[in-house]
Amino acid sequence: MSLALDPAAQDLLFREAHTANTFTDEPVTDEQVQAIYDLVKFGPTAFNQTPLRITLVRSAEARERLVQHMGDGNKAKTSTAPLVAILSADNEFHEELPTLFPAFPQAKDMIFAERATREGAAGMNAALQAAYFIVGIRAAGLAAGPMSGVDFEGVRKEFLDDDHTPLMVINIGKPGTDAFYPRSPRLAYDDVVTTV
Amino acid sequence: MSLALDPAAQDLLFREAHTANTFTDEPVTDEQVQAIYDLVKFGPTAFNQTPLRITLVRSAEARERLVQHMGDGNKAKTSTAPLVAILSADNEFHEELPTLFPAFPQAKDMIFAERATREGAAGMNAALQAAYFIVGIRAAGLAAGPMSGVDFEGVRKEFLDDDHTPLMVINIGKPGTDAFYPRSPRLAYDDVVTTV
Repeated sequence: MSLALDPAAQDLLFREAHTANTFTDEPVTDEQVQAIYDLVKFGPTAFNQTPLRITLVRSAEARERLVQHMGDGNKAKTSTAPLVAILSADNEFHEELPTLFPAFPQAKDMIFAERATREGAAGMNAALQAAYFIVGIRAAGLAAGPMSGVDFEGVRKEFLDDDHTPLMVINIGKPGTDAFYPRSPRLAYDDVVTTV
Repeated sequence: MSLALDPAAQDLLFREAHTANTFTDEPVTDEQVQAIYDLVKFGPTAFNQTPLRITLVRSAEARERLVQHMGDGNKAKTSTAPLVAILSADNEFHEELPTLFPAFPQAKDMIFAERATREGAAGMNAALQAAYFIVGIRAAGLAAGPMSGVDFEGVRKEFLDDDHTPLMVINIGKPGTDAFYPRSPRLAYDDVVTTV
């Protein structure tokens, strides 16, 4: 069974793509991040709520503050990656809903009036968008290094506010020397898919 | 700024892709789902935990049971889509971790001993995989119709168990007549991305 997506694109996005653990010095520009965003912003979310927010950590001073909140195994690569981004969910995304989902502007008050409901939806849908963003980094010919070994509460206090929940930190750049660990095994189709 | 991914692939996966609300009668085969899985299984998750599980609802009897738990606006399309899949997170994914993440088999007990920790990680990482799966459906030349207007607790009782948390239901197939709503607006880059 062949896919509609051409094999080179399959390799670029999934089959040959790996999480990178080292990077070259080549900078990642704002224009590259904009091109990635302008591609993956179209990925679907519930009610088009698009709660993902992206904090690019560019200054040396901010990078140093971020590294302090990374797990020990993530400090070195977060210090040296050309670009590091904090991905977070905006729990107040409903304020934009009448604009973002004009087909049903009442969703803001009818569905998302409660903060707990918003936090659940924002976490889920920002995670979808985080995955689209990882795919987009690869679409730009760059390698992503997503990390969850992070003191997220520390990152929130340092860089965000109570309305934003950090989801992951991602290193972005061209892979450097010995950038990749061996591919870990994946579950077989029959271990993941059942039919009723 | 041009991306490494060729423009036709950009269109197929993001720019021209839309959530479909109607479908043709053309079946979606197990071979197609297998080809999608074999592409997107490589998408990264924390500790390679890959907690996404997929339930294909193929029998007429199961489809009828599922439709009862769909929101009113989703019943008709879930009744008629060629294939419907329930995506869920396996909260007991840690049992597979020594195999899936051989670099650090201790993660099973050192990091994921607590059920609450596992539920948070499984929800987040299964959502990443749900997004890869949506991209994979499009890579197969099919349209996805992800839905969150679902009585998830009802779906869990009907099709899953206490160890699995449903995330979304997805209609899959070739788009039918008037399949697409107009594209809703997206947030501007500067509304989403900040630099520190």
